Amino acid sequence: MTSAGRVRGGRQARQAQRAGATGAPAVVPGIKRAIPTYDLFGEEGLVRIEAAIDTLLQEIGMEFRGDPPSLKLWRDAGADVEGERVRFPKGLVRDIVLRSTPKSFVHHARNPARSVVVGGNNVVFSPAYGSPFVYDIDEGRRYGSLEHFQNFVKLAYASPWMHHSGGTVCEPVDLPVNKRHLDMVYSHIRWSDKAFMGSVTAEERAEESIEMARLVFGTDFVDRNCVIMGNINVNSPLVYDAAMSKAARAYARANQCTVVVPFILGGAMGPVTTAGAIAQSMAEAMVGVALCQLERPGSPAILGNFLSSTALRSGAPTFGTPEPALGSLVIGQLTRRLGVPLRCSGAFTTSKIPDGQAMLESAVSMQAAVQCGAHFILHSAGWLEGGLAMGYEKFILDADFCSALHTYLAGIPLDDNGLALDAFREVGPGKHFFGCAHTLQNYETAFWDSAIADNNSFEQWRDAGSKDVMRRANEKWRAMLQAYEAPPLDPGIDEALRAFMAKTKESRPDAWH
Amino acid sequence: MTSAGRVRGGRQARQAQRAGATGAPAVVPGIKRAIPTYDLFGEEGLVRIEAAIDTLLQEIGMEFRGDPPSLKLWRDAGADVEGERVRFPKGLVRDIVLRSTPKSFVHHARNPARSVVVGGNNVVFSPAYGSPFVYDIDEGRRYGSLEHFQNFVKLAYASPWMHHSGGTVCEPVDLPVNKRHLDMVYSHIRWSDKAFMGSVTAEERAEESIEMARLVFGTDFVDRNCVIMGNINVNSPLVYDAAMSKAARAYARANQCTVVVPFILGGAMGPVTTAGAIAQSMAEAMVGVALCQLERPGSPAILGNFLSSTALRSGAPTFGTPEPALGSLVIGQLTRRLGVPLRCSGAFTTSKIPDGQAMLESAVSMQAAVQCGAHFILHSAGWLEGGLAMGYEKFILDADFCSALHTYLAGIPLDDNGLALDAFREVGPGKHFFGCAHTLQNYETAFWDSAIADNNSFEQWRDAGSKDVMRRANEKWRAMLQAYEAPPLDPGIDEALRAFMAKTKESRPDAWH
Repeated sequence: MTSAGRVRGGRQARQAQRAGATGAPAVVPGIKRAIPTYDLFGEEGLVRIEAAIDTLLQEIGMEFRGDPPSLKLWRDAGADVEGERVRFPKGLVRDIVLRSTPKSFVHHARNPARSVVVGGNNVVFSPAYGSPFVYDIDEGRRYGSLEHFQNFVKLAYASPWMHHSGGTVCEPVDLPVNKRHLDMVYSHIRWSDKAFMGSVTAEERAEESIEMARLVFGTDFVDRNCVIMGNINVNSPLVYDAAMSKAARAYARANQCTVVVPFILGGAMGPVTTAGAIAQSMAEAMVGVALCQLERPGSPAILGNFLSSTALRSGAPTFGTPEPALGSLVIGQLTRRLGVPLRCSGAFTTSKIPDGQAMLESAVSMQAAVQCGAHFILHSAGWLEGGLAMGYEKFILDADFCSALHTYLAGIPLDDNGLALDAFREVGPGKHFFGCAHTLQNYETAFWDSAIADNNSFEQWRDAGSKDVMRRANEKWRAMLQAYEAPPLDPGIDEALRAFMAKTKESRPDAWH
Repeated sequence: MTSAGRVRGGRQARQAQRAGATGAPAVVPGIKRAIPTYDLFGEEGLVRIEAAIDTLLQEIGMEFRGDPPSLKLWRDAGADVEGERVRFPKGLVRDIVLRSTPKSFVHHARNPARSVVVGGNNVVFSPAYGSPFVYDIDEGRRYGSLEHFQNFVKLAYASPWMHHSGGTVCEPVDLPVNKRHLDMVYSHIRWSDKAFMGSVTAEERAEESIEMARLVFGTDFVDRNCVIMGNINVNSPLVYDAAMSKAARAYARANQCTVVVPFILGGAMGPVTTAGAIAQSMAEAMVGVALCQLERPGSPAILGNFLSSTALRSGAPTFGTPEPALGSLVIGQLTRRLGVPLRCSGAFTTSKIPDGQAMLESAVSMQAAVQCGAHFILHSAGWLEGGLAMGYEKFILDADFCSALHTYLAGIPLDDNGLALDAFREVGPGKHFFGCAHTLQNYETAFWDSAIADNNSFEQWRDAGSKDVMRRANEKWRAMLQAYEAPPLDPGIDEALRAFMAKTKESRPDAWH
């Protein structure tokens, strides 16, 4: 709890808001956590869950389907491999993770000022990922496209509260499924200069994503530094399918970051009790991180979690509910004991529109992510409809909350200025603080200021058109796209990327599913 | 973190939902906290703030305006009284608070099954308080009235997630200001059987509120037990006006509970830095609690806080922002060191309607209240527009979030059932958990289920009319009022209350301001 942390959050916030108004967006390369994490369990509880994780790994194990090289890595490491089932002797997975996984690393952006640190006290916000649909309040819900994809890359670039460009910010379903990764990676590079994620849906797509990064950063640099991430979803419960394990190994082989994320809807892909889902999530994620360490020791990795509950009457997934929020807190504690960076998500909701349901659920989910100590928060902005839609207005509302979380993470300074005794001496009982020296002195940095909340009087609000926050957010994203200016890109690099894309696209027929 | 806690939350929740569907609402008399509090500072930080509190009390002190008996109590207790300014020797206020304030007490309801415990591990949710306006999405914003007041008493009675009937759930501005307290107290008694709050706006109104409680509970019982609360707002900074200190002493004298709450909008009634506002809030509240202990040692009291930030460009108050959320966490820590019950609020927002802004701000504010360890959470449901309006739909949305917080506070059980190893043994890799024995066994208690969130598919939601959550909440409060049935009230008590009201109303002319 230092005043430095606070000054950083407050001042950065103001500067970012000012800079964000015109020209290139301000640089806020992550935020340093100056508040403690929210810890749910003591030593005894954590040890109990760790024992359950060990039992799952040892007794039940996991399946690696259709990927013999992964099975070989496990056999060589000392695991018990029977067909595609792998069982892990007690402590094996933990030892592999602890032995070589970096505690923190730099994820490089092509603009070095926007590189982010993953791990330690740093927190990185990244947009939502993977929606086939997009939504805005004017045109409603429709399929994603490359144009929408580029719009969200531009919005994340223009928002000072997104530290990262994300990955599949929406699915460009107008492009062939076996080629769209090229346009997605190109869009991140061309329309932003923040760090980004590549494709994971097949090994060759992962490798081509990394190859494009090499054209930007240089082959040697990429071999020694993280410049791209792959988000690896476990096929929960307890299965890695070939696409995922091969893509994970492709990123690790290239010394690039894998984000290993079990996807557990309680009652469907995991048990209905949260403690069991936590143990499962940790076991699955640890195995993925360990696999990457076997593939290339020391390659950067992030241990992820994605817990959700289910409305048991209908079987529908639910988000932003209390159980996953508590679960995240515990996963944060367990992951800190491993010392690897943690991914947590995000601004979750099942609502179809950015209404009160959406923002309440998102606030619960995002606060848990921040309080649990996550280093990389995917799905920080835009998520709607259980992940099926990327929302324009939702993106703006979530990004504004990310701005608030910068101030939250900066904590409360306890220096003399913070305690303000001189202000009380100046003002005394029954007077107001508006004009006092302390207020004037702190005016620039005091109090987080929302860019989208309406704090005006009822009459002012009514006279300005009685707009709800969705309408105000709609005006904001339209203005941001209007004001967008692309960051410069070396023409030689641009040409090399375009040539690579063209050649790769010609090398195979279009596939649409 | 016991499984008992969990079972209580989960099972209670289901039972309450079932019972709430027909007839008398289920009894959920508070919830026991089974999770730890979120602590921001260590010993060093807390001591630093406590030193600042001492300095404020000693050096600057407070004014008690127009209430010589309060000044006499302070002089007799050893304070330094100069005119209306009271300065407190180091440790005096803390010693008085520690000496006799109960650590917890029962707040009795006329239906004993609905009595609540304030203090310890108990958490009590109470509706919003004090709005001159009401709002619903059909008719918009208009002045409060006795009819609206009664509607909100009925809604709080019908909601299993409100443990308490509240106080001025809206201002019945259609009644004379010097008589409306009689109708408010009568409405709480007649249309609910939950515990409630009385008037504080003048000493005689406080005394008449308590007198009505005596007609219900009996004079002797009231002298020995808490049956009514008074919410005492400090005239921050550092002033108690006569109405407040006299009302506070009236409640204490009758052995009834005072909730002492500084109202600090940073930059206006306090400094713009959060540490200073925390010190001020604690100093002001401790003095109020101590005054009540001087008036009657051992009378029940709750130490309150109400921190807010300000949009410094406009001077408008802001709510649900990060600074007050952090401030609440620290006030929780400091209050636990005093060992007295804590009030925190609530579902705050500046939004004029229950849109995304409203619910996000409310979620931030309510989560802070729950995480900081508050025992009594006023403004748990209904608050809009910085407290100027009580919202019907907002009440429903907030009450639903209170339901979620029951599950949150119940924590994660780590027993064998929770860890679910047998479920993994039954299901194994790659299968789903829907039909497994563990799921069936836990079906009744697993996962919090919102009564208002829409988790359906886009198509189902669209075909049901594409309703946003405000519209669904609108349908719900209308249905609840339709289904409302008044709890029985002894006709003799009813008659005595009506006679007291009539006599008191006749005794003085109407006053309208």
